Amino acid sequence: MKISARNVLQGTVKTVTHGAVNTEVTVELSGGTEIVAIITKRSAETLGLSSGGSVMCVIKASNVMIATE
Amino acid sequence: MKISARNVLQGTVKTVTHGAVNTEVTVELSGGTEIVAIITKRSAETLGLSSGGSVMCVIKASNVMIATE
Amino acid sequence: MKISARNVLQGTVKTVTHGAVNTEVTVELSGGTEIVAIITKRSAETLGLSSGGSVMCVIKASNVMIATE
Amino acid sequence: MKISARNVLQGTVKTVTHGAVNTEVTVELSGGTEIVAIITKRSAETLGLSSGGSVMCVIKASNVMIATE
Amino acid sequence: MKISARNVLQGTVKTVTHGAVNTEVTVELSGGTEIVAIITKRSAETLGLSSGGSVMCVIKASNVMIATE
Amino acid sequence: MKISARNVLQGTVKTVTHGAVNTEVTVELSGGTEIVAIITKRSAETLGLSSGGSVMCVIKASNVMIATE
Repeated sequence: MKISARNVLQGTVKTVTHGAVNTEVTVELSGGTEIVAIITKRSAETLGLSSGGSVMCVIKASNVMIATE
Repeated sequence: MKISARNVLQGTVKTVTHGAVNTEVTVELSGGTEIVAIITKRSAETLGLSSGGSVMCVIKASNVMIATE
Repeated sequence: MKISARNVLQGTVKTVTHGAVNTEVTVELSGGTEIVAIITKRSAETLGLSSGGSVMCVIKASNVMIATE
Repeated sequence: MKISARNVLQGTVKTVTHGAVNTEVTVELSGGTEIVAIITKRSAETLGLSSGGSVMCVIKASNVMIATE
Repeated sequence: MKISARNVLQGTVKTVTHGAVNTEVTVELSGGTEIVAIITKRSAETLGLSSGGSVMCVIKASNVMIATE
Repeated sequence: MKISARNVLQGTVKTVTHGAVNTEVTVELSGGTEIVAIITKRSAETLGLSSGGSVMCVIKASNVMIATE
């Protein structure tokens, strides 16, 4: 599958924290940057996410903001 | 300013492409990963974005998806 | 690629309208429902989108609202 | 109320799953396509959502991605 | 129509700026706060938006961030 | 920090409701308008949010919809 989302970042799952309907996933990108995602618990289960797994973080460009100091 | 968005990534502006109301900004993170953002043209002008500038990419965790191969 | 986005809908591209940085794509789902997407022009070009092409509309569950009459 | 969101899809509530602050709602569109939404629990209660209810799924076009195989 | 989006703010259109596919709309809330929205040009036309018109700004709670100084 | 998000609204925290991974925050703007935000519980803790605190609601323009009666 090729997707229109411009940002697809390779990484490794560090932590998976389940709530009742949502799950927080932290992913470490190569280089050490950490990305946090909130997805549904069902998706986390369907994808079989667990610490150490290889994943991609997918982010639509219109959801990225720019900030300066 | 401290913001609730969990993902704040340091980088350098590579390109700024203006449309009539929106602007596409590409940012190179340390490590070489490239992030693309769509912001308003007005914001790009207010922040004075141009190639080489130091910026942060800010992404709310609920806007990050996870994918597996 | 398997993605955490819960909504992946099969359809056929009807129209592709380019702006300077964004592109509007209309997709007809089986059953006749029409979906409109705004993606970057670059993505539309990379995916080679044109009328009649087979595509999927991908929507994160947290971006869906519910309304009643 | 007329809303700028381009995607307003008629359907019937199938399931409502409450968490502490968020609720997952699955909606079956005519034709059988299933849509999943994450809304606040408060909204689910205010709208009185329950299985079998007639609802609309509302999705802003900028939140729709396009994918190809 | 009753919508699950928790934030529905009454205001008056101040400016409407069209691009090729998107339109920027500024709305003045009672009290003087100004809100900026990016919607599709098609929606702006369908709603007949123009300066002085009475509108509502609709924002899903999951799209609101909190910041502190 | 200066951010590209066009909507930055000053207010006071009214309520903070924690779930397992997400937190609902209600903020009263000057003038009495109430805004609801869903952020991660971790962010709510990091920012030290509690009733009476002074905060800003930050909203990207592309996440604002316009509705008419």
